[in-house]
Amino acid sequence: MQEIQKVTGKYQRHGVSIREVLEGNYEGKEIRMNGVAHSIRPMGEMTFLILRKAEGLVQCICEQSSLSIEGLKEESAVELTGIVTAEARAPHGFELRLNALRILSEPAEPMPLTINKWKMNTSLEAKMAYRPVSLRNPKERAKFKIQEGIARAFRDYLQQGGFTEIRTPKIVAKNAEGGANIFRLDYFHKPAALAQSPQFYKQTMVGVFDRVFEVAPVFRAEKHNTKRHLNEYTSMDLEMGYIESFQDIMEVETGFLQAMVLLLETEYEKELKLLEVKLPKVEEIPCVTFAEAKRLVSEAYDRVIRNPYDLEPEEEQLIGRYFQERYDADFVFVTHYPSRKRPFYAMDDPADPGVTLSFDLLFRGLEITTGGQRIHELSMLQEKLTARGMQEEGLESYLMIFRHGMPPHGGLGIGLERLTMQLLAEENVRETTLFPRDLSRLEP
Amino acid sequence: MQEIQKVTGKYQRHGVSIREVLEGNYEGKEIRMNGVAHSIRPMGEMTFLILRKAEGLVQCICEQSSLSIEGLKEESAVELTGIVTAEARAPHGFELRLNALRILSEPAEPMPLTINKWKMNTSLEAKMAYRPVSLRNPKERAKFKIQEGIARAFRDYLQQGGFTEIRTPKIVAKNAEGGANIFRLDYFHKPAALAQSPQFYKQTMVGVFDRVFEVAPVFRAEKHNTKRHLNEYTSMDLEMGYIESFQDIMEVETGFLQAMVLLLETEYEKELKLLEVKLPKVEEIPCVTFAEAKRLVSEAYDRVIRNPYDLEPEEEQLIGRYFQERYDADFVFVTHYPSRKRPFYAMDDPADPGVTLSFDLLFRGLEITTGGQRIHELSMLQEKLTARGMQEEGLESYLMIFRHGMPPHGGLGIGLERLTMQLLAEENVRETTLFPRDLSRLEP
Repeated sequence: MQEIQKVTGKYQRHGVSIREVLEGNYEGKEIRMNGVAHSIRPMGEMTFLILRKAEGLVQCICEQSSLSIEGLKEESAVELTGIVTAEARAPHGFELRLNALRILSEPAEPMPLTINKWKMNTSLEAKMAYRPVSLRNPKERAKFKIQEGIARAFRDYLQQGGFTEIRTPKIVAKNAEGGANIFRLDYFHKPAALAQSPQFYKQTMVGVFDRVFEVAPVFRAEKHNTKRHLNEYTSMDLEMGYIESFQDIMEVETGFLQAMVLLLETEYEKELKLLEVKLPKVEEIPCVTFAEAKRLVSEAYDRVIRNPYDLEPEEEQLIGRYFQERYDADFVFVTHYPSRKRPFYAMDDPADPGVTLSFDLLFRGLEITTGGQRIHELSMLQEKLTARGMQEEGLESYLMIFRHGMPPHGGLGIGLERLTMQLLAEENVRETTLFPRDLSRLEP
Repeated sequence: MQEIQKVTGKYQRHGVSIREVLEGNYEGKEIRMNGVAHSIRPMGEMTFLILRKAEGLVQCICEQSSLSIEGLKEESAVELTGIVTAEARAPHGFELRLNALRILSEPAEPMPLTINKWKMNTSLEAKMAYRPVSLRNPKERAKFKIQEGIARAFRDYLQQGGFTEIRTPKIVAKNAEGGANIFRLDYFHKPAALAQSPQFYKQTMVGVFDRVFEVAPVFRAEKHNTKRHLNEYTSMDLEMGYIESFQDIMEVETGFLQAMVLLLETEYEKELKLLEVKLPKVEEIPCVTFAEAKRLVSEAYDRVIRNPYDLEPEEEQLIGRYFQERYDADFVFVTHYPSRKRPFYAMDDPADPGVTLSFDLLFRGLEITTGGQRIHELSMLQEKLTARGMQEEGLESYLMIFRHGMPPHGGLGIGLERLTMQLLAEENVRETTLFPRDLSRLEP
């Protein structure tokens, strides 16, 4: 039998990482490290080269003209060899004194905008037009490291709480929650749509796994062009059975937010510091009913209630402000939304059928979550459909789960980009979306 | 200031879990436990009730006619109160001797197919038609618990290896890898498509985070109707910079497979046992070039080579069989695919430009991964485009990253449903997809 090459999975990666330097005993030793030439500053006898790695920046000193660092271009990928030397003023407290430099690849042209200053003094428009390279700026990319942490905390917290991760289809036959804001497509000569939410599927999966979650894209063909809307975004959804009230769902969301703050504090300290993030208070979150919240801000800020069935964006801001000022609260749960503004599957309050056993979560005055208890009995659901003049046609698969038994259940959806935006105190949700999709943006 | 209700995140869940019983000291104690009445068997003086929870089944004995268990319907959601009693023959080694039974909800109709036997003796067609409820069968759902574990292992392994999780858009302007298999849609009066892969975006993000991954849906409008194709599936993608050869990527994939087997063994033991899964050997994975693989199976199985540029499904099977028989290998990397069958961004082998520095991974004779090194220099990419008669138009954002510098890099994509299918020795990829999308299935 001939000798054959085998892969063993033992390879880790080339070069030493910043973490390895910080955790190891490298002082005075020569290492190899790769990264991008983030900035190059000749200073007479020596040249300062800042190396950019995913982990952060590394200060490198080149004293040898033999290295021909003069020809090096910014944004070149390089492999450096140098001596690790303690230097309190350098990032991470060390610098590399270079002995060798190998160019791995070179850019064809210089950058179209400056990304190697700490802060990019660039318009949102320019940042978006050059998104593929503006994201290389350390502050820009730090936002998405934190976003990673948020989604990680969501999954880890739920996993530990006995939830199962699911994957539901994004091409669907009829749209769950109806309405006009649907992207339509042709699916092998059948009319299809992009899922606005995993609502029906996640409820279905409660009958299978009791508690489930999904982190996945959703699609809304809304013609809004606001600072807080996207036409494609990431929804962090959960749905849980055997609840005793919708309060159980708010408890789980609060528990997630606590886990999120803890994970960010422990594993994303660098990014929090870079972006000067003030983490929100999550020890306890006040609750107020929709009607009471309307009344409170109307009185407190002398504002006429125009629409008794929905919250205007300005009202959300004022509710946020009210609870910030009076309760020092970053978050507030607004409960018992009017039935007419909630979907047909929302459970009405038996004590007051005009309102639902539902909630929104406002974070610093912006809605980041909608949730609530769902109807779990077939007859009640059918009555609600009839009352709304809706047909069962197209809902057969959804109604099947109630026909054959469902536990009391409810759930919620969190907009990941919005949560990131509020956490980072950004003004526009596009700032916390890698490649936003809006009315005018389909690229990059 | 008025008293206001607050949510503290302290609530965990109602009732005791199976895990708590197994890890705690509950013998002889009364507990409350919720779940579904999976099966009800009257046995004269007593009734056996099997409770179904996400974690598994619990045997319950009802000796009191006062509980009026006679009226209980299968698939009702219940909350039971009973004494934990050791019972070696029961699942998990204990049973509940019931003192009380509370019905939380009832089905309107009996099940359309039998789900409370261990194995469902049902056709794939029937299982799919009743998917929302057939998934409640313990063996059916166990497949998706294992699928969860596979994706978890992918993320955990890469996270520890310094990869950053990204989220890229699924509605795109022009399709990355071109071809006819694109779902098209209207995006506010602009022509758009559903992403066939995150290819261009993940390469872009290598310039930002060095190493990235994404687990997300991809869409292929292929008119195939085979046992191994879906029109929407979950792609586990990674892309990594600073590679020295495409072998580095195969090392990372092998490392992932090792981590996957370890995680499944430790945390998904119950499901592996239930489905009688034989975990694959992952200590080392043999590699063979495309040309050599073709030759070997042609000689070994006396088979004429018809298409020298691609592998036919039967050839993949034979390559799998060859390495199983001769090397006791479940996996085999097939490397150096012909350039003409790989996309324009694939790096050609400098030693033989007719082939690429790329690979597929076959698992028990089926391709589950395509990967390889990518071109990282603008001029080389432009030459390749020209040679293929392709335009730069529509590729501006992609070309931007090379214009401004990219490190040597490469990556891969793994079909999650296919990997699950092969791991579980299923015959059809629909068996390992919650709600499959194919030529005839857009529902449920």
